[in-house]
Amino acid sequence: MAADEKLTLHLAEAIAASDPLRDEEAVTIARTALIDFFACQLGGAADRSAKILIDTFTSGTQGTAGIIGHDLRTDAFTAALINGHAGHVLDYDDVHGSVRGHPTVAIIPALLAVAVEENSTADAFIAAYIVGLETMARIGLSLGTKHYENGFHATATLGPIGAAAAIAHLLKFDPQTTATALGLAATQSAGLRLQFGFDAKPLHAGLATRAGLTAARLARSGFQGAPDFLENPIGFYSAFAFGAEQPKRVLSGWGAPWQIVSPGLTLKAFPCCTAAHPVAVGALALRSAHDLTPNEIETVVITFPPGGDAALVGSATPATGIDARFSPEYVFAAALTDGAIGIGHFDERPARADLLALSARVSRRHDETARRLSPDPTTRFVVIDVTKKDGSVLSRRIDGLPGIDDPTEKFADATGGNEKFAGIPALVRSMKTAADLRKLETLLATAI
Amino acid sequence: MAADEKLTLHLAEAIAASDPLRDEEAVTIARTALIDFFACQLGGAADRSAKILIDTFTSGTQGTAGIIGHDLRTDAFTAALINGHAGHVLDYDDVHGSVRGHPTVAIIPALLAVAVEENSTADAFIAAYIVGLETMARIGLSLGTKHYENGFHATATLGPIGAAAAIAHLLKFDPQTTATALGLAATQSAGLRLQFGFDAKPLHAGLATRAGLTAARLARSGFQGAPDFLENPIGFYSAFAFGAEQPKRVLSGWGAPWQIVSPGLTLKAFPCCTAAHPVAVGALALRSAHDLTPNEIETVVITFPPGGDAALVGSATPATGIDARFSPEYVFAAALTDGAIGIGHFDERPARADLLALSARVSRRHDETARRLSPDPTTRFVVIDVTKKDGSVLSRRIDGLPGIDDPTEKFADATGGNEKFAGIPALVRSMKTAADLRKLETLLATAI
Repeated sequence: MAADEKLTLHLAEAIAASDPLRDEEAVTIARTALIDFFACQLGGAADRSAKILIDTFTSGTQGTAGIIGHDLRTDAFTAALINGHAGHVLDYDDVHGSVRGHPTVAIIPALLAVAVEENSTADAFIAAYIVGLETMARIGLSLGTKHYENGFHATATLGPIGAAAAIAHLLKFDPQTTATALGLAATQSAGLRLQFGFDAKPLHAGLATRAGLTAARLARSGFQGAPDFLENPIGFYSAFAFGAEQPKRVLSGWGAPWQIVSPGLTLKAFPCCTAAHPVAVGALALRSAHDLTPNEIETVVITFPPGGDAALVGSATPATGIDARFSPEYVFAAALTDGAIGIGHFDERPARADLLALSARVSRRHDETARRLSPDPTTRFVVIDVTKKDGSVLSRRIDGLPGIDDPTEKFADATGGNEKFAGIPALVRSMKTAADLRKLETLLATAI
Repeated sequence: MAADEKLTLHLAEAIAASDPLRDEEAVTIARTALIDFFACQLGGAADRSAKILIDTFTSGTQGTAGIIGHDLRTDAFTAALINGHAGHVLDYDDVHGSVRGHPTVAIIPALLAVAVEENSTADAFIAAYIVGLETMARIGLSLGTKHYENGFHATATLGPIGAAAAIAHLLKFDPQTTATALGLAATQSAGLRLQFGFDAKPLHAGLATRAGLTAARLARSGFQGAPDFLENPIGFYSAFAFGAEQPKRVLSGWGAPWQIVSPGLTLKAFPCCTAAHPVAVGALALRSAHDLTPNEIETVVITFPPGGDAALVGSATPATGIDARFSPEYVFAAALTDGAIGIGHFDERPARADLLALSARVSRRHDETARRLSPDPTTRFVVIDVTKKDGSVLSRRIDGLPGIDDPTEKFADATGGNEKFAGIPALVRSMKTAADLRKLETLLATAI
């Protein structure tokens, strides 16, 4: 499909012209998503790998940008890198079907650093977030499905563009500067899905948001870049779409409704890979409907649509909780055994032996007659068939992607009920001014 | 082609086991290439875009790593970013056919920062450079030609891997840590060729070398990453090779001879895109053989092999000298008119009107009967056919890629004959110890 000859410029014009504050629903959803995201960041801030990043990157730096969950300030680039990593390290942050990944973690760490530095209002910050997410989601839609399937981590590759678009909107870049920033972001697009299950996966989010910040800062300083990354015949689609691009989806329907509203963000109920969430829901339902216990189970077969477990690169017998985030077998075993899934199931400790004993009896298959998994959430399903030792079979089908509507409890859990952070959800729900935003940032950059 | 199931580990073992200091020819070539490279860095250090990077990234940082050509020290990551950009900004640094890009600029800025910090000997530094280049070139060979043709800038995408391999060798990483470092580098592989002709192109080199440094530092700190980026079915080849990969070329023939010896580096005679160099040589030859002047010329047709001008994204009438680096038409006009090509032809000033008048009369064609341009240098040629106003035709064919053997004069030109730097070539030719390397770094990090 041939792209509009000025597609990048037209996208830049759409970014500049957008006024999402006029859409109350979008703003309300954005505030809710921010509460959910800050829960994930604060919950991840003390992770071993986040501490490695702090040790590696903050020495010798100084500045006014805070490290979330730490009493530490550094330059905006370093803060974005570390805060992006921390926001993704639990694999608990929101997902979006059009991105096939995590938009908020790629946008907010860079955007917040800039907004505080520039004394932006909380309203302008929220508007920029919605526009950045719109850009990231629509580029994702236009890229098609082969990008992800062939090995790219879309959070990482689309993230720089989303972050750069958000900052361009916040700082009211003219369309030419915005187009340059988007191209400088796209030329930093990187991240391979083979890193799922390793510390490198959340690092991708940190690198992406820092890349978006880099792109925006450089464009504003007059650093020159190509203005045509979308329509150039050897541009973004040639490199990343494997022939599956649909460039018209970048602008067709822009903001009507906003992508944050429809198809909308999913706020995760469980701190593991999205594609394993229906498995957790199914396991919990089987347990509660049949008082099912591990000892009764002979074998379990989980059926996915074609491509439905592409993200689930963890093995049936993961080594640690990190790897287990990407193991539907282990997620089934944990939910069925414990009746709940928590952060403690997916940390760096070795995978639990009792759960491994059950997960080793779980296998996967694909229903080749079903529609291939696509950004359309209605294509997502799992069927769990449990064969009991007595020969009987229990089945449960889960359609779509389960999520939560209200992250208040998740926020309290992730912060361990720490009173220092208890005011954040109410502040995020009401914030409007620059002073509100500064107060939020100060609260976030406090030692957990 | 299926990859060796442990290809990444076997590559890591080859890196660890390599001892290129035993090959005197390789070491001599490496020393020559370093002199050429430092000429390019010092010549580029005062570029407008390099100054933007210094303003954007050094504020609030501190450390012991020097900015080349400036009396300024910062942390190793920031230094690598800026020094990598400066080394590539003139598009005057060496090229290698197996990379289809520029290896030294991706390796040395990161490697030098680490080597000085770790008090490595100059011998160990040179050995690591040869091993990093071997790795980068062999991954390039294994990736096939579609990677570049579909839009990736190979200097940028292979650079992190080359830099990480060099540092892994220098610091004597065990094979597992090396494999992790290589994967952390590969997952940062980024850079689109559409940025050719813009400040973003040299930025790619800076980003690449910083990414390699990041990968090596994190791997050494116990940061976890996938150990199998080459053989993983959704790994590096799936994402970047477009089905053209030849994984056996990674290790087949490793170090025998070293890639720095054969097919070898080309040290550029002209500060413009490699693919335009045969055009410059042809124009100079036509001028000197026939006393040809611009006024005599009606039209010029330059014939390339298929794919031979893929890198030449500049137009026949470039706006500035930066864009002109990628314009074979302008390069022809400059060489024919002035009888020499220098840094002054390719700076940020507007393209010269007298040269534009001639370059507008130059066109390109492809000889579809010729072999497609490949990393094999014998596939590279141009034929220049000049039709004079008197109706006569002059032709000149140039085969292969012209380069220089001795960069001494280039070094003196690039440093403007500044006495402060005059001792660098002799030092590089003789350096062996850690003290020698420290002395070199101190000289390089001196204000131009």
